[in-house]
Amino acid sequence: MSRYDALLKDAHEFADSCRAIINETKAKGYSQEIKLDRSIVTAADKAAEERFRDAVMKRHPKHGILGEEFGEHQPGAEFRWVIDPIDGTEDFVRGIPSYGTIIGLFNGETPILGILDFPGLNERYYALKGGGAYRDKQQLKIVDLPTSQKITGEEFLHITPRNSFLRYGDTGELFDVLAKGFPRHRILFTCLSHAYAASGTFDATVEWNLRLWDLAAAQVLIEEAGGAYKIVKNERDKSGAILSAVMGKPRLVQRIVEMLEGRAPLSPP
Amino acid sequence: MSRYDALLKDAHEFADSCRAIINETKAKGYSQEIKLDRSIVTAADKAAEERFRDAVMKRHPKHGILGEEFGEHQPGAEFRWVIDPIDGTEDFVRGIPSYGTIIGLFNGETPILGILDFPGLNERYYALKGGGAYRDKQQLKIVDLPTSQKITGEEFLHITPRNSFLRYGDTGELFDVLAKGFPRHRILFTCLSHAYAASGTFDATVEWNLRLWDLAAAQVLIEEAGGAYKIVKNERDKSGAILSAVMGKPRLVQRIVEMLEGRAPLSPP
Repeated sequence: MSRYDALLKDAHEFADSCRAIINETKAKGYSQEIKLDRSIVTAADKAAEERFRDAVMKRHPKHGILGEEFGEHQPGAEFRWVIDPIDGTEDFVRGIPSYGTIIGLFNGETPILGILDFPGLNERYYALKGGGAYRDKQQLKIVDLPTSQKITGEEFLHITPRNSFLRYGDTGELFDVLAKGFPRHRILFTCLSHAYAASGTFDATVEWNLRLWDLAAAQVLIEEAGGAYKIVKNERDKSGAILSAVMGKPRLVQRIVEMLEGRAPLSPP
Repeated sequence: MSRYDALLKDAHEFADSCRAIINETKAKGYSQEIKLDRSIVTAADKAAEERFRDAVMKRHPKHGILGEEFGEHQPGAEFRWVIDPIDGTEDFVRGIPSYGTIIGLFNGETPILGILDFPGLNERYYALKGGGAYRDKQQLKIVDLPTSQKITGEEFLHITPRNSFLRYGDTGELFDVLAKGFPRHRILFTCLSHAYAASGTFDATVEWNLRLWDLAAAQVLIEEAGGAYKIVKNERDKSGAILSAVMGKPRLVQRIVEMLEGRAPLSPP
């Protein structure tokens, strides 16, 4: 077992304990509050991230940690764990089962492993750099759109909600271009879209104005499944990076990147 | 037990047998084909509808049946069962658990009962006219937006995919008005949106250019949960009625109906 295999084993244990605390808190009932950015946080988010941080610090005292709820620990460490304990807290609170726990491990900028765990769906997606991408025990292999097949706009695209295009400046026009160009698009609110891009369930997904913890598992998962992952916008504010990415089947990702960069007709022909 | 209670008991049995055959077919593997309208149908859709039709004809030989896959039986009967065996066949095929079985019973135009059954989520929503709406054992009560609360566009709206607004003539502009007016909107592809409107999970949903079987359970479910259900467009072609509806929290439904009718500003203030 390589060093990275051992780290993946650790990551699964950390995800198991997050899932346990999320399920326990859901069963018991919990309080919720509104954060400064108007998003919701619950006792389940906080408890899951705390348990994760404790476990990482105990197992890997020299590693860094970045979490949505409790910020940065040991910045500059060689290895850095990144967690969003519940991505889609609004779904969690409303009883929609698409919420997920996102865990990533980075060596500098390089993603080593990623886990997307969905307690409400009883599914886990994970990948290890060089070790493949999996949903539970099944290996994920993205099949690209055949080059003989024209991109018509009938493809299955996921887009983050339009309001994510209105954060940090109004880029709603880009959403509208995509929505008109791909009229069968879907809109979820969680990292389930990354999982479905990795499994080929969605042909691609466009993720707009997110934080590093939102995307902590996406790149390694998509790339290990054979897909393309492109950061199309990378800005910063005082809270850190604001990232926008396109991921999924390589031909479609390339086409969308070109659409967004204005290098291709804005609607598919 | 009234006559209608007995019919609801029958409907649950019919839904149980549809669920069983859908789960069996999913486990075994199945064939799929593309229909004339370019939608997908599988052996599971056909087998579930056939089993439903057999069960209705055996139990209620004088009742009519309308199904998505096999058309009309005994038109003009006093009671008419309506079924969509798998609403969201594309989700079923892709492994997204939001597909559902829709069953409705009508006396003339009046809906008597409705069931939305979600085998992939292990949830059932149902309602009996005068008997309330339920998710599994829990009664559903829609809480309207308080009159003191201004409708801002931050509400949780679901909209059917934009391509449904392009069927039977281009009404894509209406989609765009709604999408811009409610930038937190979501897009699913199945009757899970009706279920979530009945549970208050979504504040409202706009359902565009559907057939009677798609909406067979929606009205009784929403109204018995205390919500509003409005048909906003009712056209016909040679295959029957083409229906568009808005359903959910009454104040929001009214506002959306006014937006669609051009009687209110097209974007919330």
